[in-house]
Order: sequence, then C-alpha cells, then structure tokens
Amino acid sequence: MKIRMNDNYRLLEKNYLFSEVARRVACYREAHPEARVLRLSVGDVTLPLPTVVTRAMAAAVEEMASEETFRGYAPEAGYDFLLEAIRSYYLRFGVELATSEIFASDGAKSDVANLSELFGQNLVAIPDPVYPVYLDSNRMLGREVVFVPATEENDYLPGPVALEDALGHAVEGAIIYLCSPNNPTGAVYGRAGLAAWVDFARATGSLIIFDSAYEAFITGDFPHSIFEIEGAEECAIEVASLSKTAGFTGTRCSWTVVPEGLEAEGLSLNEMWLRRQTTKFNGVPYVVQRGAEAALSDEGIAECRELVAYYRENAQIIASTLEERGVAFTGGTQSPYLWLTCPGGLGSWEFFDLLLEKAQVVGTPGAGFGSFGEGHFRLTSFGSRETTIEACERLRCIL
Amino acid sequence: MKIRMNDNYRLLEKNYLFSEVARRVACYREAHPEARVLRLSVGDVTLPLPTVVTRAMAAAVEEMASEETFRGYAPEAGYDFLLEAIRSYYLRFGVELATSEIFASDGAKSDVANLSELFGQNLVAIPDPVYPVYLDSNRMLGREVVFVPATEENDYLPGPVALEDALGHAVEGAIIYLCSPNNPTGAVYGRAGLAAWVDFARATGSLIIFDSAYEAFITGDFPHSIFEIEGAEECAIEVASLSKTAGFTGTRCSWTVVPEGLEAEGLSLNEMWLRRQTTKFNGVPYVVQRGAEAALSDEGIAECRELVAYYRENAQIIASTLEERGVAFTGGTQSPYLWLTCPGGLGSWEFFDLLLEKAQVVGTPGAGFGSFGEGHFRLTSFGSRETTIEACERLRCIL
Repeated sequence: MKIRMNDNYRLLEKNYLFSEVARRVACYREAHPEARVLRLSVGDVTLPLPTVVTRAMAAAVEEMASEETFRGYAPEAGYDFLLEAIRSYYLRFGVELATSEIFASDGAKSDVANLSELFGQNLVAIPDPVYPVYLDSNRMLGREVVFVPATEENDYLPGPVALEDALGHAVEGAIIYLCSPNNPTGAVYGRAGLAAWVDFARATGSLIIFDSAYEAFITGDFPHSIFEIEGAEECAIEVASLSKTAGFTGTRCSWTVVPEGLEAEGLSLNEMWLRRQTTKFNGVPYVVQRGAEAALSDEGIAECRELVAYYRENAQIIASTLEERGVAFTGGTQSPYLWLTCPGGLGSWEFFDLLLEKAQVVGTPGAGFGSFGEGHFRLTSFGSRETTIEACERLRCIL
Repeated sequence: MKIRMNDNYRLLEKNYLFSEVARRVACYREAHPEARVLRLSVGDVTLPLPTVVTRAMAAAVEEMASEETFRGYAPEAGYDFLLEAIRSYYLRFGVELATSEIFASDGAKSDVANLSELFGQNLVAIPDPVYPVYLDSNRMLGREVVFVPATEENDYLPGPVALEDALGHAVEGAIIYLCSPNNPTGAVYGRAGLAAWVDFARATGSLIIFDSAYEAFITGDFPHSIFEIEGAEECAIEVASLSKTAGFTGTRCSWTVVPEGLEAEGLSLNEMWLRRQTTKFNGVPYVVQRGAEAALSDEGIAECRELVAYYRENAQIIASTLEERGVAFTGGTQSPYLWLTCPGGLGSWEFFDLLLEKAQVVGTPGAGFGSFGEGHFRLTSFGSRETTIEACERLRCIL
C-alpha cells in the first residue's frame, strides 16, 4: 500500500518487556519440560474477586437477561451509581470531587496512554525506571522525553531538582508523570515530596499525570491521592484502578480524575477528555460497573483489605529472605513490589537468566523499566502463598 | 497551565450529535412534563442478552469467585477460545482467517477511532452522511478529509468515481472508510459494488477500513465481510461488533481483523496494531469474553437471529407507515435503519423539532451525519414492538 504510516512506531522497542520475559521463559521450558517454573514476575493478582463483587456481578448478569432490567449503552463516563461510589471512596482520604470530574474506564493503562492525545508537543518528564507505558505511549506520538533518574541516592523518589538536573535548564509547561507507590521500585512519596512536585508544577505551568494504581497498598501516613495535596486540582490528573485493589486485572475497571478547573490555551481538559471518551469509548460493561460499585462499598473495601494484606504478607516473606541473604532492596512495605540491587554486580537480564536457570524463578529485569533500572530486579508479591514460600526457599539456596 | 494542547479539538463540533438530541429532548420534557416521548433515535438495542450468553457469563462470574479458576490479565488480543469462535463465525461466510489476524476489543467505536493512530498524514475519504466517529477521530489528529457524497442519485452507495469527483483529481494512498449496511442510510453494498472499491484500493495503494457492525441484519445476497471479496486481504481492515448482533451495547465486545499481509512503508499493520493494543489496552473482561464466545456458538447465533428478526419486523412496521403516508425512504430491509427524505422540503433539525412537538417521537436529524444528510432523517427499529407501533400511529396522524 502507498499510505503513510506513523513513523514513531519505529522508535519503539520491538518487544514489550513482559513479552520478552514470556519468550525467555517459554524457551527455558522447552529445553527443560520437567522444570517447575515459579513466577514472581508479572504484576498480576492470583486471589479471586471479593465475594461481594461476584455477587453483584451475578445479579447484574441476571438483569441483562430480562427485558425489564436490561441495559444498553452506558454513559461513556460511567453510571452515576459508580461515580458516586468513587466519589465516596475519595472522601475517605479527605478529597472532595464532583462526579463530573470522574471518568470510569476499562483500565488505567488505557487512560494513562490515551491522555497524551489531548496535548500538543510538550516536554514530557518520565521517571526512570518506571512502568513502560508512559514512555511507549509518548514515543508513539513523537514526543520529546526527558528521563528523571530514580536512584539509590534520591531514595528512588526524585524531586523537581532531579528533573531540572536531567534537563540542564529550567522547565516551562511540561507533562510530568508520577507513580506512587511506584512500579517498579515500590517507593512511595510522602506529603512533603508530593507537595514539592505540586508546587513545582504550579510554578512552571506544568501538568502532573499521577498514577495511583497501587494506593491500596499504603499503610503508613502517605498520600493515597495527589488531590490530598493543596493546589493539585490546579495542575494534576489522577489515574486510579481496581486491578490491584480488588483483583480486577481480568475484570477491567479504572477511573481518571480530571479537575474542572484545569485549563491550558483556553481549552478545558475536563471537556476535552469528555469529548475524547464520548468519541472513542463506549463505557465500561454494566456488569463490571456493578462489580466495581460493590468493591467500593464498605463491605467491598473490607474484603479488598484482606486481599491486600495477603499480598503484603507475601512481600514480607520475600523481604525476610533478601535480608537474610544480604541482598539490598527497597519497597515491599507500601507496595506489592520489591526492587533488588542485583548481587555481584550482575546486569539485570543476566540476573534474570541466572534465577531462571538455577532456581526456576521468574522475576522482571530492572533494565526493562528504563536505563536506570539496569543492575536492578523486580519481584512481586502477587503469587500464591505456596509459590512465594517455595520461590523464597529456592532463592535462599542460590543467593 | 502553560502546556500546549491538541489544537485539533477546536475543529470539533461542540456537541456530539446524540448529546444534542438528548439536550433538545430534555428541554421538551421540562416544558411538557406530562408528555410520553417515544424514541426511534439512538441505535441502542432493547431486547435482553441471549439466554446462552447470560448463562455463560454467570458461569464465568462463578469462576472469578474461586482461586482455582480465577483469571487475571487476559491476552490483550483475546483468549484463544474467543478468537477461535470468531474464526469459525467467518467460515460461515467462506472467509478463512488466522487467529493472529483477529483482535478482540471493547468496541468497534474504540477500534475504528484508535486505528487512525497507526497512520501518518494521508488523505482520508469518508462517506457523507455516515457515523460521526470516522470524522471526529480523524479531525482530532488533524487529518485532511474528503467527503464522498452518498445521495439518492447513487442509491446512497457511492463508488470510487464519487470519491474522485469529490476530490477533483486522482487518488494515491488514501484511507477509505466504508460502512455496509450503512449507518445511517441502511444502504448495503452488493458484491460488485464492494469489489469496485477493493479493486480501486489495490490500484491506488489505498487502505479500506470496513465497518461491518450491522452485518447480522443482512438477509439477501450481500457480503457480510469485505474479506468475501477477492483481494481485500491486500487492502482492507474490518471492524465488527456484537453490539447489534447479540445485544452487546452495554456488555462490550467487538473485534478487528488486520490481515497479516498488510504492509506500507515497510511496516506491518498487523504488528503495529498488536503493539498498539498491548501498549494501550488490557483486553476484554474474561466474563464478557465467555459471553461473546457463547453468542458465536450455534445456539447463540440461533438466538441472535431471533433478536434481529424482531427488530426487522419493527423496521417493516415503520416502512409500511412511511409507504402509506407517501414519505420517501431507503433502508430498513438489510439494516435496522430507515433513512427518510424529510417531507415538505423541511430541514432535518426542523423535522426533528416537528416530530418532537407534534408527535413526541424522537428520531435523528440527517444533518448530524454530514452535510449531505441535510433534508433527511433517521429512524431506527431498535425500540420495543409497543413503542414502534405507538410511534407509527402518531406518525400516521401528522405525516
């Protein structure tokens, strides 16, 4: 064909990180069909949906079976019952939102990637290491990207100074991605750290895209939402998800908060996102919206806390093993992720191959999350208790 | 904020067509709270999901409640069981696909809009009138658009000549949108008409994006899929949906077929779409995929045919009314839509207001689908039998 293609796709790594991990595991399995490979890699949950959720979903399926209660197209931004449930959820953190500021969707990944469509060419600041979707979605649009190093020196919590140092000059009107608790490092911003970013964004006319997908893992006095910070409603969008909170990775429900007051070049970001979603999205399935509403009820939140507590115990088991073997790591307390420094100065893919070959344990190489991830490695606490314990026994033998 | 925004949003009409319809209806209702307004407007279904579908969804909800059968992240392009069901469905039309060419998604609207991201600047050819999403999604990317008039003269089925006439010069490497059976005109391409487009696309290096969302309404000898036409696998992508086939408007499952061989500028469209979907999408909910699989089983297809037959009878009732009152129209036989010429030379929003005020019947103004839709009006057969009959009685009185 003679059509012109989006050349930016040539800039993308050929394989999405997790596809390359899967490929190497498949190769190993083919060579060692008898091996029992244990995964502490992909950030996928293993416990079933909360009972209150499946009960609500089953009832909604019943409704879809009867002409009197059947539902067709949902409002693109979500039914009021769900938006109200999300609004109430934020009240727990002392954050007051209007339902018109909340947009339910099928995934934080979709939203965080699709948001870029609203903007023109801007400097895009992305932490390194971080969840690869921020970078790839911006690369697809040919954006200029600056990486903000998250290193041991800054406790994996870079502030505005790290951005200006990386850039070499002052910032004006940038798009800044933040993820806290962080994927992959497990680091979490305190109030002061997050306030420094909000103040910086306001001073430089920048927009923060805040990914709070792991907020349910917070136990200490850390902000669950960027809107707990004064002034954030003037400079931030937040993307949240039920994937890790309520085990929705295969059920799909998330939301994005776009404050009414956000404006640039005379355009309202809230209106633009509404226009984007009504044009390119048809809403979350009714059955899923009822499940999400249930997950955010008092009973649902109580059940979700049990899920999270289970994964947190797994994290504790992994953390003890690493401590015992003298492997340096961060994370694992306010987050499902543990971020290791590869022992013996190994590269992160070398350490990946070593763990796979010697222990048949799969983790995720830090280099896959950015160049500052090289020499590091991510383990997750989302496995079953049994898998976690057995994987740790094997790690104990080889580390 | 000082960030630069996507200026193309300024080119969009302020209101999505159906939002403006809703606004006028709400105004009318406020002024006439006693009125019983009947809708023959939005293309939303009213009959419940097929029994086989809700049974499968209920079983899948059960699976999500138990640790042994719980499912986390789905493959972004869909589980094999669903891709196999879609592959088998195409065999009914004599079309053989590889499952790697099928990408399940949450909606034809999402896919048809998101596909534009794969391309650079090309001439984009869009029928007029047509489903507004083709235009809006291209406007958001600042694409150059040429409208291909669908008029009474070409039986609302424009061919390549209409495109070249509208453009005033030869075409090279365009993106061409086709929708058959058409929304809003109800016109459907025969094999020769569609083959003319395929031949033209191959000769000019163009790509056809074919929207087959209404194929289940075809009863005569018309192609259900563009891949029934020889050579289409070299020049076409097809977007299909269960929304109208199986009543999935509030359940959300569609798919896009991107043939392996499609290539431009050395890039494989199939690989690019896979990269787009793995980066920006997390798959269709497991529960919904099981429902979709059931809808495409023999039992499911039999139930779907009953749904479609019901709507087709509604279309026949509306058609008889229009014939009786001497109103010119097309569609309604291979499609859920009837496309009227507004009587008395009225403009389409004038006719909208007239129907609303005199008969409390809501339809969709043709002008909302493009400038060649002016003077026309869309009625749909998706209402209940009772609504359809009562609306027709009222129309009989005022037409």
